[in-house]
Amino acid sequence: MNRPIALLTDFGTADWFAASMKGVILSVNPRALIVDISHEVPRGDIRNAAFGILSCHSSFPKGTVFAAVVDPGVGSDRLAIAVKAGGYFFVGPDNGVMSLLSDTYYPVEIRLLQNSSCFRKTVSATFHGRDVFAPAAAHLSRGFSFKDLGPLHKDLVRLAMPVAKRTGKSILGTIVYIDGFGNCVTTIAPALLPSEKSLLRVRNRVVPFRSCYADVGTGKPVAVEGSCGLIELCVNKGNAAETLHLTVGDTVTVS
Amino acid sequence: MNRPIALLTDFGTADWFAASMKGVILSVNPRALIVDISHEVPRGDIRNAAFGILSCHSSFPKGTVFAAVVDPGVGSDRLAIAVKAGGYFFVGPDNGVMSLLSDTYYPVEIRLLQNSSCFRKTVSATFHGRDVFAPAAAHLSRGFSFKDLGPLHKDLVRLAMPVAKRTGKSILGTIVYIDGFGNCVTTIAPALLPSEKSLLRVRNRVVPFRSCYADVGTGKPVAVEGSCGLIELCVNKGNAAETLHLTVGDTVTVS
Amino acid sequence: MNRPIALLTDFGTADWFAASMKGVILSVNPRALIVDISHEVPRGDIRNAAFGILSCHSSFPKGTVFAAVVDPGVGSDRLAIAVKAGGYFFVGPDNGVMSLLSDTYYPVEIRLLQNSSCFRKTVSATFHGRDVFAPAAAHLSRGFSFKDLGPLHKDLVRLAMPVAKRTGKSILGTIVYIDGFGNCVTTIAPALLPSEKSLLRVRNRVVPFRSCYADVGTGKPVAVEGSCGLIELCVNKGNAAETLHLTVGDTVTVS
Repeated sequence: MNRPIALLTDFGTADWFAASMKGVILSVNPRALIVDISHEVPRGDIRNAAFGILSCHSSFPKGTVFAAVVDPGVGSDRLAIAVKAGGYFFVGPDNGVMSLLSDTYYPVEIRLLQNSSCFRKTVSATFHGRDVFAPAAAHLSRGFSFKDLGPLHKDLVRLAMPVAKRTGKSILGTIVYIDGFGNCVTTIAPALLPSEKSLLRVRNRVVPFRSCYADVGTGKPVAVEGSCGLIELCVNKGNAAETLHLTVGDTVTVS
Repeated sequence: MNRPIALLTDFGTADWFAASMKGVILSVNPRALIVDISHEVPRGDIRNAAFGILSCHSSFPKGTVFAAVVDPGVGSDRLAIAVKAGGYFFVGPDNGVMSLLSDTYYPVEIRLLQNSSCFRKTVSATFHGRDVFAPAAAHLSRGFSFKDLGPLHKDLVRLAMPVAKRTGKSILGTIVYIDGFGNCVTTIAPALLPSEKSLLRVRNRVVPFRSCYADVGTGKPVAVEGSCGLIELCVNKGNAAETLHLTVGDTVTVS
Repeated sequence: MNRPIALLTDFGTADWFAASMKGVILSVNPRALIVDISHEVPRGDIRNAAFGILSCHSSFPKGTVFAAVVDPGVGSDRLAIAVKAGGYFFVGPDNGVMSLLSDTYYPVEIRLLQNSSCFRKTVSATFHGRDVFAPAAAHLSRGFSFKDLGPLHKDLVRLAMPVAKRTGKSILGTIVYIDGFGNCVTTIAPALLPSEKSLLRVRNRVVPFRSCYADVGTGKPVAVEGSCGLIELCVNKGNAAETLHLTVGDTVTVS
C-alpha cells in the first residue's frame, strides 16, 4: 500500500520547513508520493487552510493522507488529531483546520494522535509538522491502522464559517476566499439561484451569472460556478477583488 | 510505461489549483512522476508560457508529457489540443502556448482533445486544467494511444514571435524573456555573431560577448550564451534588467 | 538503489531552471525521488544556503543526495565538488555552500567532480546546475560509486560563520538566519544557557527563554529552542524580526 500524501502548511516556500517534513516522510516510507497543496497559507490563517483542504481534497484518490499544518499553538496544550472522513485521512492540530470536513462528511472518525511510535524519536516543542504530523502521515501512507494512532475523540474544534441564507425572496451569501486571480469565492451554491440568468449584488455592483469568464467582455464582472462548486465573482481577464474592491467577509445578495 | 508529467501554469503557488491537477493525475496514474516547471507564469501571459515550454522541454527524457495550462479563454470555444513533437507530448489550450514547438519541430502531430473517456467525469467550465488537461496527461503517461485522444487537427494558433534579422552588416534581435536573475534573453543565436569578441548594443550601452559572467568585473554587463542556446544580456553578480533598464521587446543590435 | 535527491538553489520558482535540473535527473534515473528544499535562497547568498543545508539535511534518510546550487561563479575557475559527510552526499560548487557540514562532521570525504561521464553531454558555461550537478546527483542516487566521481580533494572553501562565545559570565551570540515567520535563529545552543529561565538581551530588549511560543502572551517576545537545535528569538503569533527590528548579524547576549 502506498497512499499519496498531500501537504498544506503556512511554512512558506523559502525556508526548508516543508522539506524537513518530506525528509521525515521518506525516512518512514521510502517510496512516498508527496504532493504540495500549498505552503503559502497566510501565516496562522486557519480559516484559509480549512477552506483549501475542503476545496481540493476530492480531486485526490480515495485513501490520500492530508497533513494540514497551520499551527500557531504548537507546543501548547492544543491537541493533535487524525480524522477519517469521506474515505480520506487527515492529520493536523485540533484548531479548526479540519473542521469544515466534519461539516461535509458523516460520519467522521476522530483519533487523538497519541501513539508515539508514529512520531519522530525526539519531538520538539516548535515543529510538530516535522516531528508528529509528517511521520504520522507517512505511517498512514504505508497502511498503518488508523485506530492504532490513538483513542477516539468526540469532536474537534470548529470554525464559525458563514453559510448562505434565504431571507424572504433574497439569498444572502458571503465571500469566504479570494484566490490568486482575484476571483472571490462566495458561500452560494448555484442550486440556490432562482434562475440561470440571476443577478448578484455586491458593493452596489450588479454581476450577472454566466457559465464562463468569456461570456462577458474583457474587463467586465461575471459570476460563474467555480471549481469548488460555489459561485465566484470574477472579471474576465481581470482581477475581481481589485476591480470591485472586494474582501473576505463581504456580503453578496441575489434577489 | 510511466512517462514523467511536467506542469506549467499561471495558477500561482498559493492556491490549491496545481494540487488539484496532481490529485486527478494520481487518480488516473497512481505511480505518476510529476514535475512542476512553474506555476508562476504571469497570469494569462501565453507568450511567456510558450517560451518557458520551449526552453526547458529538451532537458526532460523523450516521452515526457507536458501540460501547459495558461488558459484565459477556458470554457469558451477555444479548442483543447494535444501535440506530439520531437518525441515529446504536450496538452493544453489551443491559444498559442504550444506554437513555438511547431516552429521548432517538423513534423508535429496535432490532435483535438475530444475523447471524453480521458476527461474527468464532470467537466467544469472554469477549470480545464483539472478536468481535461490533467487527466489527458495522466492517460498519456500510462501509454494511452496518442491518436485515440481525438481527430487530427491541421494547425494550431500561432504566436507572432520576433526572430533575429540580418540587415546589411548588422544583426537585429529582440529581448523575449527576462528571468528572475534579471538576465535578458535575446532572439540572437551565438552562431549569428560575426566573431567571438562581438559587441552588442542595447539602449546606448555596449555589452561585450564573453563565455561566462565572471569574465567581466562584478557589476559589469556581459553577454553570454545562455542555457536556452540564445544570447543573454547579464550583469556579473547583478541584475541586468534593472541595471540597464531593459524590458521585453527591447531591440539588441550587433554590428 | 534509489536514494532521494534534494535540491537547494537560488533559481527562484518562476523560471524553469529547477525543472531543467529535474528533467536531467529523470533522464539519468527514471524513478528518481526528487524533493525541493528551496529555490528561494536570496540570489547568490551562499551563507543562507549553507545554513539551510545544514539545518534540514538530517531530517532526510541517510544516503540522501543533496544538490546545493548557489553558484554566482559558474563557468569561472571555481571547482565543482562532491562531499560525503555523516552518511549523506552533497554536490555543488566549492564556494562555501557545503562548508558548514565539514564543521559538523568528521571525517568528510571531498571529491572533485571531474568524471565527465556523470555530466550532461554538453556542458554550458552558465548552467552547471543542469549540466553538472543534476546529473552527478542522479548518478549517485542510483548507486554510482562516490570515489569514481573524481580525485580526492583536501579541503573546501570555508565560510567565516560566527559561533557563540563565553566571555566571563556572559554568552555572546549572533543572529545567523531569519525565517519567513520572522523567527531569528541565533548561534546559541540551549545547553550553553545558565538556567532554564534565562533571559536574553538583544537591541535593548529582554527576551525570556521558554519552551514554546504560547508560553508568553500574544504579541510578546520569547526565546525558544528552534527546530535546528539553536535558540530562536520569536514573537508569539507575530514576527520577531519586524517587531524587534532584528537583522542577520545582530548580537544576542545572555548574562
